[in-house]
Amino acid sequence: MIERIAILGTGLLGASAGLALRKAGFKGSIAGWNRGTEGAQAALKSGAIDSIASDPISVACAADLTILSVPIYATLDLMEQLAPRLTPDQLVTDVGSTKLHITRAGTMHFNQTGRAAFLPGHPMAGKERGGAELADADLFRGAVWLFTDAPEAVRSPRGRVLVTCWRSWVDAMGSRIIDLDAARHDELVAWVSHLPQFLATSLSALLEDRVGDAPELKDVGGRGLREMTRLGASPYSMWRDIALTNGEAIQAALLALEQRLAHLRENLRTPELRTEFDKANQFRKE
Amino acid sequence: MIERIAILGTGLLGASAGLALRKAGFKGSIAGWNRGTEGAQAALKSGAIDSIASDPISVACAADLTILSVPIYATLDLMEQLAPRLTPDQLVTDVGSTKLHITRAGTMHFNQTGRAAFLPGHPMAGKERGGAELADADLFRGAVWLFTDAPEAVRSPRGRVLVTCWRSWVDAMGSRIIDLDAARHDELVAWVSHLPQFLATSLSALLEDRVGDAPELKDVGGRGLREMTRLGASPYSMWRDIALTNGEAIQAALLALEQRLAHLRENLRTPELRTEFDKANQFRKE
Repeated sequence: MIERIAILGTGLLGASAGLALRKAGFKGSIAGWNRGTEGAQAALKSGAIDSIASDPISVACAADLTILSVPIYATLDLMEQLAPRLTPDQLVTDVGSTKLHITRAGTMHFNQTGRAAFLPGHPMAGKERGGAELADADLFRGAVWLFTDAPEAVRSPRGRVLVTCWRSWVDAMGSRIIDLDAARHDELVAWVSHLPQFLATSLSALLEDRVGDAPELKDVGGRGLREMTRLGASPYSMWRDIALTNGEAIQAALLALEQRLAHLRENLRTPELRTEFDKANQFRKE
Repeated sequence: MIERIAILGTGLLGASAGLALRKAGFKGSIAGWNRGTEGAQAALKSGAIDSIASDPISVACAADLTILSVPIYATLDLMEQLAPRLTPDQLVTDVGSTKLHITRAGTMHFNQTGRAAFLPGHPMAGKERGGAELADADLFRGAVWLFTDAPEAVRSPRGRVLVTCWRSWVDAMGSRIIDLDAARHDELVAWVSHLPQFLATSLSALLEDRVGDAPELKDVGGRGLREMTRLGASPYSMWRDIALTNGEAIQAALLALEQRLAHLRENLRTPELRTEFDKANQFRKE
């Protein structure tokens, strides 16, 4: 059903999707477009895409499925540009980390009579550093892939077939699909994804100030420190859009953690410390 | 030089030391004592020790080297009990996570004329769960092993030989030795070890309250969440003593992080966010 795929944005996620599709047995064409030519070249060289497109709009117009794998505001821009050019026989999906803005734009610009179908998606996979060079055919294996719009949101029969088909490919790439309301998605990822990221950034920045002048002493922290600061390497360019499109939920989560840390600090020498350890143990048990 | 070793406390660190010594070629005897019989049996079964002692004092009296691998207050108790019973021909070392109290006790009760030698040590290795069952001959490989007293602190010639010998075994087990002042040690580990632990505990406890009722959604967080909460499984029993013996430094580190998180939260939508990401990237680069 899906024979021609366009990947707009051949960074880590876009190029990994190309590689994962090939590994899962996809035989059709995969064209790629990237803002920077180096990323497109790397994706071509690795086999993630078979051709490089010079224009994102025209390559999407020639595709059954377009995967938007660029930062969130770039995704919203492309959605606006693509919507009036595509037909009801085409499907667009994305991999953005916040979903309320994108899902609303999908309802507004797509999924209407005479318009192409749009399926908002979010694979919970990534690395602390981006780029096509780090792309991995197994990146999505074992990961959750969230969709934040009911399959019924797509109205055209052909669009629905394409949605079913894309969900099968996601399954074939080894991901576990969970359908979730977009608002609930953004609230949930604020806790389980965005909070850990901003926490790792804050901890890493603080430690850079405190022990950054004695790099040999970082080894003292061992595996625990390495894990707790790994996400400190994540790029601002990606997280800025997430901060801007899910700011309130992230701020609420950060404030709750600040209060929790203050509570632990004030109870460092009281039996209440045991309660916090018990609750933390419980979280890791399930 | 060291032929008879006594390991007091055959938990994760004690039993791993026994296995690592054997793997490094130690041919002498290794006797073990443990408060709970199960832990001693597990250590015996795995080959970490060759015999189980019923009394910690008498087995230490018969050893060239005694390794104290029990929680910090238990270490301090054993030090007081052992000091008057041992001779200048014997060495005691420990693996405790805070070093100021233990190093001071070493100076007070050991390393005096007519007394045994004491070398305060701290291998930066562990797992989020303890117990002899998880012991690993390679636990210390690649890890830093800190000592917080000058080798000259030991006065008896035989004691100095034993210190040199034990440092060689630590090297043979694959650890990298760093010598550090005890006060500087406690200050440093508050930042690179204790802060990450209490942070993971706080984050895990908070998430248990927020998403603990929807365990399937924990998978959404992926690798980042798993890493940031792994230490949430750490036992209160071990960390209580650390909190009590390094409270001030830990509280200062926690307060600094609370302030840093508040700063990030207040600047989530300003260009200052880039500064924090840049600094965090820097920490991970070196």
